[in-house]
Amino acid sequence: MGGIAGSFVAVDWGTTNRRAWRVADGHATSLLSDDRGILAVTDFAAAVADVQARAPGLPLLMAGMIGSNRGWREVPYVPAPATLTEIAAAVDWVEPEIGIVPGVSFADGALADIMRGEEVQLLGACALAAVECDGLVCHPGTHTKWAEMEGGAIARFRTVMTGDLFAALQHKSILTDLLAHAAPVDAAFLAGVDHALANSDLTAELFAVRARVVLGLAEARHAASYVSGLLIGTDVRTGLGRVRADVVPVLGAPALTARFAAALARAGRHATEHDGDAAFIAGMTAIAGAL
Amino acid sequence: MGGIAGSFVAVDWGTTNRRAWRVADGHATSLLSDDRGILAVTDFAAAVADVQARAPGLPLLMAGMIGSNRGWREVPYVPAPATLTEIAAAVDWVEPEIGIVPGVSFADGALADIMRGEEVQLLGACALAAVECDGLVCHPGTHTKWAEMEGGAIARFRTVMTGDLFAALQHKSILTDLLAHAAPVDAAFLAGVDHALANSDLTAELFAVRARVVLGLAEARHAASYVSGLLIGTDVRTGLGRVRADVVPVLGAPALTARFAAALARAGRHATEHDGDAAFIAGMTAIAGAL
Repeated sequence: MGGIAGSFVAVDWGTTNRRAWRVADGHATSLLSDDRGILAVTDFAAAVADVQARAPGLPLLMAGMIGSNRGWREVPYVPAPATLTEIAAAVDWVEPEIGIVPGVSFADGALADIMRGEEVQLLGACALAAVECDGLVCHPGTHTKWAEMEGGAIARFRTVMTGDLFAALQHKSILTDLLAHAAPVDAAFLAGVDHALANSDLTAELFAVRARVVLGLAEARHAASYVSGLLIGTDVRTGLGRVRADVVPVLGAPALTARFAAALARAGRHATEHDGDAAFIAGMTAIAGAL
Repeated sequence: MGGIAGSFVAVDWGTTNRRAWRVADGHATSLLSDDRGILAVTDFAAAVADVQARAPGLPLLMAGMIGSNRGWREVPYVPAPATLTEIAAAVDWVEPEIGIVPGVSFADGALADIMRGEEVQLLGACALAAVECDGLVCHPGTHTKWAEMEGGAIARFRTVMTGDLFAALQHKSILTDLLAHAAPVDAAFLAGVDHALANSDLTAELFAVRARVVLGLAEARHAASYVSGLLIGTDVRTGLGRVRADVVPVLGAPALTARFAAALARAGRHATEHDGDAAFIAGMTAIAGAL
Protein backbone atom coordinates (compact mmCIF):
# COMPACT_ATOMS: atom_id res chain seq x y z
CA MET A 1 0.00 0.00 0.00
CA GLY A 2 1.02 3.55 -0.64
CA GLY A 3 -0.69 6.88 -0.27
CA ILE A 4 -0.62 10.46 -1.45
CA ALA A 5 -0.37 13.58 0.66
CA GLY A 6 -0.15 17.01 -0.98
CA SER A 7 0.98 17.39 -4.59
CA PHE A 8 0.95 14.50 -7.07
CA VAL A 9 1.04 13.72 -10.77
CA ALA A 10 -2.26 12.64 -12.37
CA VAL A 11 -1.92 10.56 -15.54
CA ASP A 12 -4.67 9.72 -18.04
CA TRP A 13 -3.08 6.89 -20.02
CA GLY A 14 -5.31 5.68 -22.80
CA THR A 15 -5.10 3.38 -25.79
CA THR A 16 -3.71 5.92 -28.25
CA ASN A 17 -2.45 8.81 -26.13
CA ARG A 18 -1.40 9.85 -22.64
CA ARG A 19 -1.58 13.07 -20.65
CA ALA A 20 -0.15 14.08 -17.30
CA TRP A 21 -0.75 17.00 -14.95
CA ARG A 22 0.93 18.15 -11.78
CA VAL A 23 -1.86 18.62 -9.26
CA ALA A 24 -1.37 20.80 -6.16
CA ASP A 25 -4.14 22.15 -3.96
CA GLY A 26 -6.72 21.33 -6.65
CA HIS A 27 -4.81 23.30 -9.32
CA ALA A 28 -3.49 21.38 -12.32
CA THR A 29 -0.53 22.18 -14.58
CA SER A 30 -0.08 20.22 -17.78
CA LEU A 31 3.17 18.23 -17.80
CA LEU A 32 2.78 16.03 -20.85
CA SER A 33 0.45 15.27 -23.74
CA ASP A 34 1.59 12.90 -26.47
CA ASP A 35 0.60 9.89 -28.56
CA ARG A 36 2.39 7.29 -26.41
CA GLY A 37 -0.80 5.41 -25.61
CA ILE A 38 -0.45 1.84 -24.35
CA LEU A 39 -0.42 0.41 -27.87
CA ALA A 40 2.72 2.46 -28.63
CA VAL A 41 4.60 1.35 -25.50
CA THR A 42 6.59 -1.84 -24.96
CA ASP A 43 8.76 -0.86 -21.98
CA PHE A 44 6.24 0.47 -19.46
CA ALA A 45 8.76 0.95 -16.64
CA ALA A 46 10.77 3.26 -18.88
CA ALA A 47 7.66 5.06 -20.15
CA VAL A 48 6.51 5.65 -16.56
CA ALA A 49 9.97 6.86 -15.55
CA ASP A 50 9.74 9.36 -18.40
CA VAL A 51 6.56 10.76 -16.85
CA GLN A 52 8.12 10.83 -13.38
CA ALA A 53 11.07 12.81 -14.68
CA ARG A 54 8.71 15.70 -15.49
CA ALA A 55 7.97 16.20 -11.79
CA PRO A 56 10.73 14.52 -9.74
CA GLY A 57 9.83 13.35 -6.27
CA LEU A 58 6.05 13.48 -6.66
CA PRO A 59 3.83 10.39 -6.42
CA LEU A 60 2.05 9.20 -9.56
CA LEU A 61 -1.62 8.26 -9.82
CA MET A 62 -2.54 6.78 -13.18
CA ALA A 63 -5.90 5.86 -14.73
CA GLY A 64 -7.11 4.36 -17.98
CA MET A 65 -5.90 1.51 -20.17
CA ILE A 66 -2.51 1.49 -18.41
CA GLY A 67 -4.31 -0.84 -15.95
CA SER A 68 -5.61 -3.20 -18.65
CA ASN A 69 -4.22 -6.53 -19.83
CA ARG A 70 -2.48 -4.63 -22.62
CA GLY A 71 -1.09 -2.01 -20.22
CA TRP A 72 1.60 -2.07 -17.56
CA ARG A 73 -0.22 -4.29 -15.10
CA GLU A 74 -3.76 -5.63 -15.16
CA VAL A 75 -5.74 -4.15 -12.28
CA PRO A 76 -8.99 -5.99 -11.45
CA TYR A 77 -12.22 -4.07 -12.08
CA VAL A 78 -14.28 -2.83 -9.15
CA PRO A 79 -17.79 -4.18 -9.76
CA ALA A 80 -20.64 -1.65 -9.99
CA PRO A 81 -22.20 -0.20 -7.93
CA ALA A 82 -18.79 1.40 -7.28
CA THR A 83 -18.12 4.31 -4.95
CA LEU A 84 -15.15 6.66 -4.81
CA THR A 85 -14.09 5.02 -1.55
CA GLU A 86 -14.15 1.54 -3.07
CA ILE A 87 -12.19 2.67 -6.11
CA ALA A 88 -9.59 4.44 -3.97
CA ALA A 89 -9.22 1.34 -1.78
CA ALA A 90 -8.58 -0.79 -4.89
CA VAL A 91 -5.80 1.40 -6.32
CA ASP A 92 -2.98 -0.96 -7.28
CA TRP A 93 0.40 0.22 -5.95
CA VAL A 94 2.93 -1.00 -8.49
CA GLU A 95 5.59 0.82 -6.47
CA PRO A 96 5.16 2.58 -3.11
CA GLU A 97 4.39 5.90 -4.80
CA ILE A 98 3.03 4.75 -8.15
CA GLY A 99 -0.62 3.71 -8.15
CA ILE A 100 -3.01 2.60 -10.88
CA VAL A 101 -6.73 3.38 -10.48
CA PRO A 102 -8.94 0.35 -11.24
CA GLY A 103 -11.68 0.40 -13.85
CA VAL A 104 -15.31 -0.49 -13.14
CA SER A 105 -17.26 -3.50 -14.40
CA PHE A 106 -20.96 -4.13 -14.57
CA ALA A 107 -22.77 -7.43 -15.01
CA ASP A 108 -26.47 -8.06 -14.59
CA GLY A 109 -28.11 -10.97 -16.36
CA ALA A 110 -27.27 -10.70 -20.04
CA LEU A 111 -25.76 -7.22 -19.60
CA ALA A 112 -21.99 -6.97 -19.25
CA ASP A 113 -19.80 -3.90 -19.50
CA ILE A 114 -16.44 -2.42 -18.57
CA MET A 115 -14.79 0.99 -18.32
CA ARG A 116 -11.25 2.17 -17.57
CA GLY A 117 -10.65 5.88 -17.13
CA GLU A 118 -14.19 7.19 -17.54
CA GLU A 119 -14.94 6.32 -13.89
CA VAL A 120 -12.50 9.07 -12.82
CA GLN A 121 -14.34 11.71 -14.86
CA LEU A 122 -17.75 10.51 -13.67
CA LEU A 123 -16.74 10.66 -10.00
CA GLY A 124 -14.85 13.91 -10.61
CA ALA A 125 -17.83 15.69 -12.12
CA CYS A 126 -19.80 14.49 -9.14
CA ALA A 127 -17.13 15.79 -6.74
CA LEU A 128 -17.17 19.15 -8.53
CA ALA A 129 -20.95 19.18 -8.01
CA ALA A 130 -21.06 19.90 -11.74
CA VAL A 131 -23.14 16.79 -12.20
CA GLU A 132 -26.01 15.43 -10.14
CA CYS A 133 -24.71 12.43 -8.26
CA ASP A 134 -28.01 10.73 -8.99
CA GLY A 135 -29.09 10.24 -12.56
CA LEU A 136 -27.87 9.52 -16.06
CA VAL A 137 -24.51 10.88 -17.26
CA CYS A 138 -23.12 10.58 -20.78
CA HIS A 139 -19.42 10.27 -21.59
CA PRO A 140 -19.26 10.22 -25.43
CA GLY A 141 -16.37 8.92 -27.49
CA THR A 142 -14.89 5.92 -29.26
CA HIS A 143 -16.85 3.87 -26.74
CA THR A 144 -19.56 6.11 -25.33
CA LYS A 145 -20.49 5.38 -21.71
CA TRP A 146 -23.98 6.03 -20.34
CA ALA A 147 -23.72 5.77 -16.55
CA GLU A 148 -26.47 5.82 -13.98
CA MET A 149 -25.20 7.45 -10.80
CA GLU A 150 -26.89 6.65 -7.49
CA GLY A 151 -25.91 8.43 -4.31
CA GLY A 152 -22.49 9.22 -5.73
CA ALA A 153 -21.80 5.67 -6.89
CA ILE A 154 -21.56 4.41 -10.46
CA ALA A 155 -24.58 2.11 -10.20
CA ARG A 156 -24.77 0.69 -13.74
CA PHE A 157 -23.66 1.67 -17.23
CA ARG A 158 -23.80 0.76 -20.89
CA THR A 159 -21.22 1.30 -23.64
CA VAL A 160 -22.14 2.15 -27.24
CA MET A 161 -19.26 1.79 -29.70
CA THR A 162 -20.12 4.86 -31.76
CA GLY A 163 -16.73 6.38 -32.56
CA ASP A 164 -15.18 2.96 -33.12
CA LEU A 165 -17.90 2.04 -35.62
CA PHE A 166 -17.60 5.36 -37.46
CA ALA A 167 -13.84 4.84 -37.77
CA ALA A 168 -14.28 1.25 -38.97
CA LEU A 169 -16.75 2.33 -41.67
CA GLN A 170 -14.45 5.19 -42.63
CA HIS A 171 -11.48 2.87 -42.86
CA LYS A 172 -12.85 0.09 -45.02
CA SER A 173 -16.43 -0.15 -46.28
CA ILE A 174 -18.65 0.94 -49.16
CA LEU A 175 -18.85 4.30 -47.32
CA THR A 176 -15.10 4.92 -47.11
CA ASP A 177 -15.03 7.58 -49.86
CA LEU A 178 -18.07 9.42 -48.53
CA LEU A 179 -16.77 9.43 -44.94
CA ALA A 180 -13.58 11.23 -46.01
CA HIS A 181 -15.65 14.46 -46.02
CA ALA A 182 -15.92 16.67 -42.92
CA ALA A 183 -18.91 15.99 -40.64
CA PRO A 184 -20.07 19.30 -39.16
CA VAL A 185 -23.13 19.56 -36.89
CA ASP A 186 -25.50 20.79 -39.58
CA ALA A 187 -28.92 20.00 -41.04
CA ALA A 188 -27.66 16.68 -42.45
CA PHE A 189 -26.34 15.69 -39.00
CA LEU A 190 -29.67 16.50 -37.36
CA ALA A 191 -31.55 14.59 -40.08
CA GLY A 192 -29.38 11.56 -39.29
CA VAL A 193 -30.09 11.95 -35.57
CA ASP A 194 -33.83 12.22 -36.21
CA HIS A 195 -33.81 9.11 -38.38
CA ALA A 196 -31.98 7.09 -35.75
CA LEU A 197 -34.20 8.27 -32.90
CA ALA A 198 -37.30 7.13 -34.80
CA ASN A 199 -36.00 3.96 -36.50
CA SER A 200 -33.90 0.93 -35.68
CA ASP A 201 -32.70 0.14 -39.21
CA LEU A 202 -29.13 1.48 -38.92
CA THR A 203 -27.40 -1.22 -40.98
CA ALA A 204 -29.83 -0.63 -43.88
CA GLU A 205 -29.93 3.17 -43.60
CA LEU A 206 -26.12 3.28 -43.85
CA PHE A 207 -26.37 1.74 -47.33
CA ALA A 208 -29.14 4.17 -48.30
CA VAL A 209 -26.65 6.99 -47.67
CA ARG A 210 -24.63 5.72 -50.60
CA ALA A 211 -27.67 4.91 -52.75
CA ARG A 212 -28.99 8.47 -52.40
CA VAL A 213 -25.67 9.93 -53.56
CA VAL A 214 -25.45 7.52 -56.52
CA LEU A 215 -29.04 8.35 -57.53
CA GLY A 216 -28.44 12.11 -57.22
CA LEU A 217 -30.90 12.42 -54.32
CA ALA A 218 -28.28 13.69 -51.84
CA GLU A 219 -24.94 15.45 -52.06
CA ALA A 220 -21.76 13.51 -51.28
CA ARG A 221 -20.48 16.36 -49.09
CA HIS A 222 -23.35 15.84 -46.62
CA ALA A 223 -22.91 12.09 -46.22
CA ALA A 224 -20.38 12.11 -43.36
CA SER A 225 -22.53 14.48 -41.27
CA TYR A 226 -25.59 12.33 -41.89
CA VAL A 227 -23.74 9.14 -40.90
CA SER A 228 -22.35 10.84 -37.77
CA GLY A 229 -25.93 11.84 -36.94
CA LEU A 230 -27.19 8.29 -37.56
CA LEU A 231 -24.59 6.78 -35.24
CA ILE A 232 -24.92 9.42 -32.50
CA GLY A 233 -28.71 9.31 -32.74
CA THR A 234 -28.52 5.53 -32.32
CA ASP A 235 -26.16 6.06 -29.38
CA VAL A 236 -28.58 8.49 -27.71
CA ARG A 237 -31.61 6.26 -28.34
CA THR A 238 -29.74 3.29 -26.85
CA GLY A 239 -28.24 5.26 -23.97
CA LEU A 240 -31.49 6.87 -22.88
CA GLY A 241 -33.22 3.48 -23.07
CA ARG A 242 -35.91 3.31 -20.45
CA VAL A 243 -34.13 5.66 -18.04
CA ARG A 244 -36.03 8.79 -17.07
CA ALA A 245 -33.74 11.77 -17.56
CA ASP A 246 -34.87 15.25 -18.58
CA VAL A 247 -31.44 16.76 -18.02
CA VAL A 248 -28.37 14.81 -19.10
CA PRO A 249 -24.84 15.95 -18.19
CA VAL A 250 -22.34 15.22 -20.98
CA LEU A 251 -18.63 14.98 -20.07
CA GLY A 252 -15.78 15.28 -22.54
CA ALA A 253 -13.99 17.48 -25.03
CA PRO A 254 -16.15 20.48 -26.06
CA ALA A 255 -16.37 19.53 -29.78
CA LEU A 256 -17.76 16.14 -28.84
CA THR A 257 -20.06 17.23 -26.02
CA ALA A 258 -21.61 19.83 -28.38
CA ARG A 259 -22.36 17.09 -30.91
CA PHE A 260 -24.09 14.91 -28.30
CA ALA A 261 -25.89 17.91 -26.76
CA ALA A 262 -27.37 18.67 -30.19
CA ALA A 263 -28.52 15.05 -30.55
CA LEU A 264 -29.97 14.96 -27.02
CA ALA A 265 -31.94 18.13 -27.80
CA ARG A 266 -33.56 16.31 -30.76
CA ALA A 267 -34.59 13.63 -28.26
CA GLY A 268 -36.27 16.31 -26.14
CA ARG A 269 -33.60 16.26 -23.43
CA HIS A 270 -31.56 19.14 -22.08
CA ALA A 271 -27.83 18.44 -22.06
CA THR A 272 -25.38 20.22 -19.80
CA GLU A 273 -21.82 20.15 -21.11
CA HIS A 274 -18.82 19.64 -18.83
CA ASP A 275 -15.14 19.72 -19.64
CA GLY A 276 -13.68 16.23 -19.39
CA ASP A 277 -10.19 17.38 -18.35
CA ALA A 278 -11.54 19.38 -15.41
CA ALA A 279 -13.61 16.37 -14.36
CA PHE A 280 -10.56 14.10 -14.63
CA ILE A 281 -8.44 16.37 -12.42
CA ALA A 282 -11.24 16.65 -9.89
CA GLY A 283 -11.71 12.88 -9.90
CA MET A 284 -8.03 12.14 -9.39
CA THR A 285 -7.89 14.76 -6.63
CA ALA A 286 -10.88 13.15 -4.91
CA ILE A 287 -9.36 9.66 -5.22
CA ALA A 288 -5.98 10.93 -3.92
CA GLY A 289 -7.79 12.47 -0.97
CA ALA A 290 -9.55 9.19 -0.20
CA LEU A 291 -6.42 7.01 -0.21
CA MET B 1 -28.60 -2.31 -80.51
CA GLY B 2 -27.45 -5.87 -80.64
CA GLY B 3 -29.05 -9.17 -79.85
CA ILE B 4 -28.32 -12.74 -78.95
CA ALA B 5 -29.49 -15.85 -80.75
CA GLY B 6 -28.35 -19.28 -79.59
CA SER B 7 -25.21 -19.70 -77.47
CA PHE B 8 -23.65 -16.82 -75.54
CA VAL B 9 -21.24 -16.06 -72.72
CA ALA B 10 -22.77 -14.93 -69.43
CA VAL B 11 -20.49 -12.87 -67.19
CA ASP B 12 -21.02 -12.00 -63.53
CA TRP B 13 -18.50 -9.20 -63.00
CA GLY B 14 -18.47 -7.93 -59.47
CA THR B 15 -16.39 -5.66 -57.29
CA THR B 16 -13.79 -8.22 -56.24
CA ASN B 17 -14.18 -11.13 -58.66
CA ARG B 18 -15.58 -12.18 -62.03
CA ARG B 19 -17.01 -15.39 -63.42
CA ALA B 20 -18.01 -16.42 -66.91
CA TRP B 21 -20.02 -19.33 -68.34
CA ARG B 22 -20.71 -20.48 -71.85
CA VAL B 23 -24.48 -20.91 -72.04
CA ALA B 24 -26.07 -23.09 -74.74
CA ASP B 25 -29.64 -24.40 -74.67
CA GLY B 26 -29.91 -23.55 -71.00
CA HIS B 27 -26.79 -25.55 -70.10
CA ALA B 28 -23.85 -23.65 -68.62
CA THR B 29 -20.15 -24.50 -68.73
CA SER B 30 -17.74 -22.56 -66.56
CA LEU B 31 -15.18 -20.60 -68.61
CA LEU B 32 -13.55 -18.42 -66.00
CA SER B 33 -13.52 -17.62 -62.29
CA ASP B 34 -10.88 -15.27 -60.92
CA ASP B 35 -10.29 -12.26 -58.69
CA ARG B 36 -10.22 -9.70 -61.50
CA GLY B 37 -13.21 -7.76 -60.13
CA ILE B 38 -13.67 -4.18 -61.34
CA LEU B 39 -11.41 -2.77 -58.62
CA ALA B 40 -8.51 -4.87 -60.02
CA VAL B 41 -9.02 -3.78 -63.64
CA THR B 42 -7.75 -0.62 -65.32
CA ASP B 43 -7.98 -1.61 -69.00
CA PHE B 44 -11.53 -2.92 -69.36
CA ALA B 45 -11.34 -3.42 -73.13
CA ALA B 46 -8.39 -5.77 -72.65
CA ALA B 47 -10.05 -7.52 -69.69
CA VAL B 48 -13.22 -8.09 -71.73
CA ALA B 49 -11.17 -9.35 -74.71
CA ASP B 50 -9.59 -11.84 -72.31
CA VAL B 51 -13.07 -13.19 -71.48
CA GLN B 52 -14.04 -13.28 -75.20
CA ALA B 53 -10.95 -15.31 -76.03
CA ARG B 54 -12.32 -18.16 -73.88
CA ALA B 55 -15.23 -18.65 -76.32
CA PRO B 56 -14.37 -16.97 -79.62
CA GLY B 57 -17.25 -15.77 -81.78
CA LEU B 58 -19.93 -15.87 -79.07
CA PRO B 59 -21.77 -12.75 -77.91
CA LEU B 60 -21.15 -11.54 -74.33
CA LEU B 61 -23.82 -10.55 -71.82
CA MET B 62 -22.39 -9.09 -68.65
CA ALA B 63 -24.02 -8.10 -65.32
CA GLY B 64 -22.88 -6.59 -62.05
CA MET B 65 -20.53 -3.77 -61.13
CA ILE B 66 -19.00 -3.79 -64.64
CA GLY B 67 -21.91 -1.43 -65.43
CA SER B 68 -21.19 0.94 -62.53
CA ASN B 69 -19.32 4.24 -62.52
CA ARG B 70 -16.24 2.31 -61.44
CA GLY B 71 -16.70 -0.32 -64.15
CA TRP B 72 -16.30 -0.30 -67.93
CA ARG B 73 -19.23 1.95 -68.71
CA GLU B 74 -21.93 3.35 -66.43
CA VAL B 75 -25.30 1.91 -67.39
CA PRO B 76 -28.33 3.80 -66.00
CA TYR B 77 -30.44 1.91 -63.44
CA VAL B 78 -33.91 0.71 -64.40
CA PRO B 79 -36.23 2.11 -61.73
CA ALA B 80 -38.34 -0.37 -59.76
CA PRO B 81 -40.85 -1.79 -60.35
CA ALA B 82 -38.64 -3.42 -62.97
CA THR B 83 -39.64 -6.36 -65.19
CA LEU B 84 -37.45 -8.74 -67.16
CA THR B 85 -38.67 -7.11 -70.39
CA GLU B 86 -37.71 -3.63 -69.20
CA ILE B 87 -34.29 -4.80 -68.05
CA ALA B 88 -33.64 -6.61 -71.35
CA ALA B 89 -34.69 -3.50 -73.30
CA ALA B 90 -32.22 -1.40 -71.31
CA VAL B 91 -29.18 -3.63 -71.95
CA ASP B 92 -26.36 -1.31 -73.00
CA TRP B 93 -24.58 -2.56 -76.15
CA VAL B 94 -21.01 -1.38 -75.79
CA GLU B 95 -20.24 -3.21 -79.01
CA PRO B 96 -22.72 -4.97 -81.33
CA GLU B 97 -22.28 -8.27 -79.52
CA ILE B 98 -21.20 -7.12 -76.06
CA GLY B 99 -24.04 -6.03 -73.79
CA ILE B 100 -24.16 -4.88 -70.15
CA VAL B 101 -27.30 -5.61 -68.12
CA PRO B 102 -28.49 -2.55 -66.14
CA GLY B 103 -28.98 -2.55 -62.38
CA VAL B 104 -32.23 -1.61 -60.66
CA SER B 105 -32.90 1.43 -58.47
CA PHE B 106 -35.66 2.11 -55.99
CA ALA B 107 -36.72 5.44 -54.54
CA ASP B 108 -39.85 6.12 -52.52
CA GLY B 109 -39.99 9.04 -50.13
CA ALA B 110 -37.00 8.75 -47.80
CA LEU B 111 -36.15 5.26 -49.08
CA ALA B 112 -33.47 4.95 -51.74
CA ASP B 113 -31.65 1.85 -52.90
CA ILE B 114 -29.64 0.33 -55.74
CA MET B 115 -28.57 -3.13 -56.95
CA ARG B 116 -26.30 -4.34 -59.75
CA GLY B 117 -26.18 -8.06 -60.46
CA GLU B 118 -28.69 -9.32 -57.89
CA GLU B 119 -31.56 -8.43 -60.27
CA VAL B 120 -30.38 -11.19 -62.61
CA GLN B 121 -30.55 -13.81 -59.84
CA LEU B 122 -33.93 -12.56 -58.63
CA LEU B 123 -35.46 -12.73 -62.11
CA GLY B 124 -33.66 -15.99 -62.83
CA ALA B 125 -35.03 -17.73 -59.74
CA CYS B 126 -38.44 -16.50 -60.82
CA ALA B 127 -37.89 -17.85 -64.36
CA LEU B 128 -36.83 -21.19 -62.91
CA ALA B 129 -40.07 -21.15 -60.93
CA ALA B 130 -37.82 -21.89 -57.98
CA VAL B 131 -39.11 -18.76 -56.33
CA GLU B 132 -42.62 -17.36 -56.13
CA CYS B 133 -42.76 -14.36 -58.43
CA ASP B 134 -44.84 -12.63 -55.79
CA GLY B 135 -43.42 -12.13 -52.33
CA LEU B 136 -40.26 -11.44 -50.39
CA VAL B 137 -36.91 -12.86 -51.58
CA CYS B 138 -33.60 -12.59 -49.71
CA HIS B 139 -30.21 -12.33 -51.43
CA PRO B 140 -27.68 -12.30 -48.57
CA GLY B 141 -24.11 -11.06 -48.78
CA THR B 142 -21.81 -8.08 -48.39
CA HIS B 143 -24.88 -5.98 -49.11
CA THR B 144 -27.91 -8.20 -48.48
CA LYS B 145 -30.91 -7.44 -50.71
CA TRP B 146 -34.50 -8.03 -49.56
CA ALA B 147 -36.68 -7.75 -52.66
CA GLU B 148 -40.43 -7.76 -52.92
CA MET B 149 -41.48 -9.40 -56.18
CA GLU B 150 -44.86 -8.55 -57.67
CA GLY B 151 -46.14 -10.35 -60.76
CA GLY B 152 -42.60 -11.20 -61.83
CA ALA B 153 -41.29 -7.65 -61.37
CA ILE B 154 -38.83 -6.40 -58.76
CA ALA B 155 -41.29 -4.07 -57.06
CA ARG B 156 -39.19 -2.66 -54.22
CA PHE B 157 -36.15 -3.65 -52.19
CA ARG B 158 -33.92 -2.77 -49.29
CA THR B 159 -30.21 -3.34 -48.77
CA VAL B 160 -28.65 -4.19 -45.40
CA MET B 161 -24.87 -3.90 -45.31
CA THR B 162 -24.26 -6.95 -43.16
CA GLY B 163 -21.16 -8.53 -44.68
CA ASP B 164 -19.56 -5.14 -45.24
CA LEU B 165 -20.07 -4.19 -41.59
CA PHE B 166 -18.72 -7.52 -40.32
CA ALA B 167 -15.61 -7.06 -42.47
CA ALA B 168 -15.14 -3.45 -41.29
CA LEU B 169 -15.37 -4.55 -37.62
CA GLN B 170 -13.01 -7.43 -38.33
CA HIS B 171 -10.53 -5.15 -40.04
CA LYS B 172 -10.20 -2.36 -37.49
CA SER B 173 -12.17 -2.08 -34.27
CA ILE B 174 -12.08 -3.14 -30.64
CA LEU B 175 -13.45 -6.50 -31.91
CA THR B 176 -10.68 -7.17 -34.45
CA ASP B 177 -8.93 -9.84 -32.35
CA LEU B 178 -12.16 -11.63 -31.44
CA LEU B 179 -13.42 -11.64 -35.04
CA ALA B 180 -10.30 -13.49 -36.22
CA HIS B 181 -11.93 -16.68 -34.89
CA ALA B 182 -14.13 -18.89 -37.10
CA ALA B 183 -17.87 -18.15 -36.98
CA PRO B 184 -19.77 -21.43 -37.37
CA VAL B 185 -23.56 -21.64 -37.20
CA ASP B 186 -23.72 -22.85 -33.61
CA ALA B 187 -25.43 -22.02 -30.33
CA ALA B 188 -23.52 -18.72 -30.06
CA PHE B 189 -24.66 -17.73 -33.56
CA LEU B 190 -28.29 -18.49 -32.71
CA ALA B 191 -28.00 -16.56 -29.43
CA GLY B 192 -26.78 -13.55 -31.42
CA VAL B 193 -29.69 -13.91 -33.85
CA ASP B 194 -32.19 -14.14 -31.00
CA HIS B 195 -30.75 -11.05 -29.34
CA ALA B 196 -30.96 -9.02 -32.55
CA LEU B 197 -34.50 -10.16 -33.35
CA ALA B 198 -35.68 -8.98 -29.94
CA ASN B 199 -33.57 -5.85 -29.45
CA SER B 200 -32.40 -2.84 -31.44
CA ASP B 201 -29.24 -2.08 -29.46
CA LEU B 202 -26.68 -3.48 -31.94
CA THR B 203 -24.00 -0.82 -31.43
CA ALA B 204 -24.08 -1.41 -27.66
CA GLU B 205 -24.37 -5.19 -27.79
CA LEU B 206 -21.25 -5.34 -30.00
CA PHE B 207 -19.23 -3.83 -27.16
CA ALA B 208 -20.81 -6.22 -24.65
CA VAL B 209 -19.31 -9.07 -26.70
CA ARG B 210 -15.87 -7.85 -25.70
CA ALA B 211 -16.87 -7.01 -22.13
CA ARG B 212 -18.16 -10.56 -21.56
CA VAL B 213 -14.88 -12.06 -22.73
CA VAL B 214 -12.80 -9.67 -20.59
CA LEU B 215 -14.95 -10.46 -17.54
CA GLY B 216 -14.74 -14.22 -18.14
CA LEU B 217 -18.49 -14.48 -18.83
CA ALA B 218 -18.03 -15.78 -22.40
CA GLU B 219 -15.32 -17.58 -24.33
CA ALA B 220 -13.33 -15.70 -26.94
CA ARG B 221 -13.76 -18.54 -29.44
CA HIS B 222 -17.54 -17.97 -29.54
CA ALA B 223 -17.39 -14.22 -30.16
CA ALA B 224 -17.25 -14.26 -33.96
CA SER B 225 -20.25 -16.59 -34.22
CA TYR B 226 -22.22 -14.40 -31.82
CA VAL B 227 -21.36 -11.22 -33.76
CA SER B 228 -22.28 -12.93 -37.05
CA GLY B 229 -25.59 -13.87 -35.44
CA LEU B 230 -26.14 -10.32 -34.17
CA LEU B 231 -25.55 -8.82 -37.62
CA ILE B 232 -27.58 -11.44 -39.51
CA GLY B 233 -30.37 -11.28 -36.94
CA THR B 234 -30.44 -7.50 -37.41
CA ASP B 235 -30.48 -8.06 -41.17
CA VAL B 236 -33.44 -10.44 -40.92
CA ARG B 237 -35.35 -8.16 -38.53
CA THR B 238 -34.81 -5.22 -40.88
CA GLY B 239 -35.51 -7.18 -44.06
CA LEU B 240 -38.72 -8.74 -42.83
CA GLY B 241 -39.87 -5.34 -41.60
CA ARG B 242 -43.63 -5.11 -41.94
CA VAL B 243 -43.80 -7.48 -44.91
CA ARG B 244 -45.94 -10.60 -44.46
CA ALA B 245 -43.88 -13.60 -45.51
CA ASP B 246 -44.17 -17.05 -43.98
CA VAL B 247 -41.89 -18.63 -46.59
CA VAL B 248 -38.78 -16.73 -47.68
CA PRO B 249 -36.65 -17.93 -50.61
CA VAL B 250 -32.95 -17.25 -50.04
CA LEU B 251 -30.62 -17.06 -53.07
CA GLY B 252 -26.86 -17.41 -52.98
CA ALA B 253 -23.94 -19.64 -52.15
CA PRO B 254 -25.00 -22.60 -49.97
CA ALA B 255 -22.82 -21.67 -46.96
CA LEU B 256 -24.44 -18.25 -46.82
CA THR B 257 -28.02 -19.29 -47.54
CA ALA B 258 -27.76 -21.88 -44.73
CA ARG B 259 -26.71 -19.14 -42.31
CA PHE B 260 -29.68 -16.94 -43.26
CA ALA B 261 -32.07 -19.90 -43.30
CA ALA B 262 -31.07 -20.64 -39.69
CA ALA B 263 -31.68 -17.00 -38.73
CA LEU B 264 -35.04 -16.88 -40.54
CA ALA B 265 -36.12 -20.02 -38.68
CA ARG B 266 -35.49 -18.19 -35.37
CA ALA B 267 -37.82 -15.48 -36.67
CA GLY B 268 -40.50 -18.12 -37.24
CA ARG B 269 -40.14 -18.10 -41.03
CA HIS B 270 -39.45 -21.02 -43.33
CA ALA B 271 -36.57 -20.38 -45.71
CA THR B 272 -36.13 -22.20 -49.00
CA GLU B 273 -32.52 -22.19 -50.24
CA HIS B 274 -31.64 -21.72 -53.90
CA ASP B 275 -28.25 -21.86 -55.59
CA GLY B 276 -27.24 -18.37 -56.72
CA ASP B 277 -25.21 -19.57 -59.72
CA ALA B 278 -28.13 -21.55 -61.15
CA ALA B 279 -30.36 -18.50 -60.67
CA PHE B 280 -27.80 -16.28 -62.39
CA ILE B 281 -27.56 -18.58 -65.45
CA ALA B 282 -31.35 -18.80 -65.63
CA GLY B 283 -31.66 -15.02 -65.36
CA MET B 284 -29.10 -14.35 -68.07
CA THR B 285 -30.78 -16.96 -70.29
CA ALA B 286 -34.15 -15.31 -69.76
CA ILE B 287 -32.73 -11.83 -70.50
CA ALA B 288 -30.96 -13.13 -73.63
CA GLY B 289 -34.23 -14.64 -74.78
CA ALA B 290 -36.04 -11.34 -74.29
CA LEU B 291 -33.58 -9.22 -76.28
